[in-house]
Amino acid sequence: MSAGPSAPPRPAPTDRAAVVTAVERALTDFFADRRAAVAEMGPVVVAAAEALQDFVLRGGKRTRPAFAWTGWLGAGGDPDAPAAPAVLTACAALELVQACALIHDDIIDSSRTRRGFPTVHTDFEQRHRDREWGGGAAHFGTSVGILVGDLALAWADDMIAAAGLDPAAFARFGRVWAAMRTEVLGGQLLDIHGEAGGDESVEAALRINRYKTAAYTIERPLHLGAALADADPALIADYREFGTDIGIAFQLRDDLLGVFGDPAVTGKPSGDDLREGKRTVLIAEALQRADRTDPAAADLLRTSLGTDLAPDEVTRLRTLIARLGAVDAVEQRITTLTDRGLAALDRSATTPAAKQHLRTMAVAATSRVA
Amino acid sequence: MSAGPSAPPRPAPTDRAAVVTAVERALTDFFADRRAAVAEMGPVVVAAAEALQDFVLRGGKRTRPAFAWTGWLGAGGDPDAPAAPAVLTACAALELVQACALIHDDIIDSSRTRRGFPTVHTDFEQRHRDREWGGGAAHFGTSVGILVGDLALAWADDMIAAAGLDPAAFARFGRVWAAMRTEVLGGQLLDIHGEAGGDESVEAALRINRYKTAAYTIERPLHLGAALADADPALIADYREFGTDIGIAFQLRDDLLGVFGDPAVTGKPSGDDLREGKRTVLIAEALQRADRTDPAAADLLRTSLGTDLAPDEVTRLRTLIARLGAVDAVEQRITTLTDRGLAALDRSATTPAAKQHLRTMAVAATSRVA
Repeated sequence: MSAGPSAPPRPAPTDRAAVVTAVERALTDFFADRRAAVAEMGPVVVAAAEALQDFVLRGGKRTRPAFAWTGWLGAGGDPDAPAAPAVLTACAALELVQACALIHDDIIDSSRTRRGFPTVHTDFEQRHRDREWGGGAAHFGTSVGILVGDLALAWADDMIAAAGLDPAAFARFGRVWAAMRTEVLGGQLLDIHGEAGGDESVEAALRINRYKTAAYTIERPLHLGAALADADPALIADYREFGTDIGIAFQLRDDLLGVFGDPAVTGKPSGDDLREGKRTVLIAEALQRADRTDPAAADLLRTSLGTDLAPDEVTRLRTLIARLGAVDAVEQRITTLTDRGLAALDRSATTPAAKQHLRTMAVAATSRVA
Repeated sequence: MSAGPSAPPRPAPTDRAAVVTAVERALTDFFADRRAAVAEMGPVVVAAAEALQDFVLRGGKRTRPAFAWTGWLGAGGDPDAPAAPAVLTACAALELVQACALIHDDIIDSSRTRRGFPTVHTDFEQRHRDREWGGGAAHFGTSVGILVGDLALAWADDMIAAAGLDPAAFARFGRVWAAMRTEVLGGQLLDIHGEAGGDESVEAALRINRYKTAAYTIERPLHLGAALADADPALIADYREFGTDIGIAFQLRDDLLGVFGDPAVTGKPSGDDLREGKRTVLIAEALQRADRTDPAAADLLRTSLGTDLAPDEVTRLRTLIARLGAVDAVEQRITTLTDRGLAALDRSATTPAAKQHLRTMAVAATSRVA
């Protein structure tokens, strides 16, 4: 189950493209390694494993592995050391946790497409229809999606167990890994309860951000890298502050793009978050302000969000949200968080090259347009 | 994250009740250990974790941990050795994999109750209704059920990682653990495809049995115990043959009880498997025989299975299935498999006490009435 003779190349620390290539190579090797065990169970299981492989390798920015790898380098990890390929493989396994999160999230959000392809449950729903099988196609698709997501979660652990980490590094990694998984699942639970229960507060939206995105996307990946490098507690604390602040800012930027982003750049329909009725910090800010100053606007927001909005209605809501000052407030939060996060990075004992690289990644994550 | 000062007591090998108590103690300790991390995320996540804890501790025969523990003892594991509590904790973690499998299966099978309680997704559906929240209650229940099952799967790994196994034992265990999880998920995928695609062959039903039940319930738990004890390959091979044969026989007995069992004893409505249209070996045998000898009976079976049958229709189908010789054929398979499995056990190098105990467990699993 090891990566074997085709161990991934060791990317240079500041070359993002090389990290992406190496991560995808490690994932490809892992799936190749699984093929025999899966083939023994027959074509149905092979098809499910292939659907997972396609999902994982089809795209994505490899953000989490890149932060973990850079965290390791920044804590003194040596990309030329014999341990480096095992570290890279462990970092790449984050993409399998992410696959589970996305596949299950797509069921929860009833999303039909992702990155221009049908979501896993939609794909299997269609296969059911094409074969004219018995029973409900939608329920079949959901069932397969649940199991393919489970497979991804189980395989994430298998990939780490087989990465070839030494036992001490594995144990340090495992404690952070455990915390991270509980946090992302907790964040998803908070998210669906927030939507159902209608908690409109800024605090509730920030709490979801904290666990569902910030911890899981930047803070814990950096922490994982630091744990692998056996970093000292001060560096870990600085990484975590940087990761939390930049992670929340990253999600706030995402919230803005979900309402104001250019569909040609984001790849999502314009105003999608408004149609879905997502309870973001942006929306919470808008509602809070409207409640204070403009009850009619508050009413319009509450009755419009989560409905099938026409383009001109989307435009009207956008204008309203901006006029209420919610956009400025969110931009202000992004600036404050980014400044604080970068200050933590600056004062940290991170190596200069990694510091430079993390700064670039932080700026890209918080000021991106897509 | 260790079991700490309240390490579980070390049960004597042949005392099933003591094993159950120790397994439940290890699980209780694990959940207690999680409480602080979960509390930090707030009451929503606490409620989900409590739902999982209730589900896990509410009942169940602890079959998988018992087979794993007995497999370890039978391979020379010493219940008085310092390593024994870690082994017991690792065996107990099988109950968390099982919790994920059952919680997600209940969504897939649209089951409303389990062991006399609402299933997890039904429970949260009802909470949604009680609170008069927005959005669909059923979809909310499914969403929470997916995430609680994911939590169980993630926590199973965490429990093993924190059990305190030495690195070599952990590595041996991990390889079998990985195989087992892929097999049970593969078995579930085969199951839902079998039902949807209408593969009526005995071979398809046996293949589902093999992966979904036999490997996962007896073969791999024994193998896990043997791996922890660093057993030699001959004993592992004998364990696996015993486990596969007895595991399949166990499921065949379950199939018979699902159609002919006494509701007062099984706790399930009479003929439930007929109403659900389960594609068991029993049904496959009946259909195969009817196709050869009685086309009208085959037609009746195909149009009746999976429909909302009245009690007298259940009785008629039972009589028909028995008359076709399907019951005798399944009983014959159970006898052949049990004899072969017990022969593998007899010739194995298992310790005499464990051999006796496994024989008792095998007979109970294959001749039980509930």
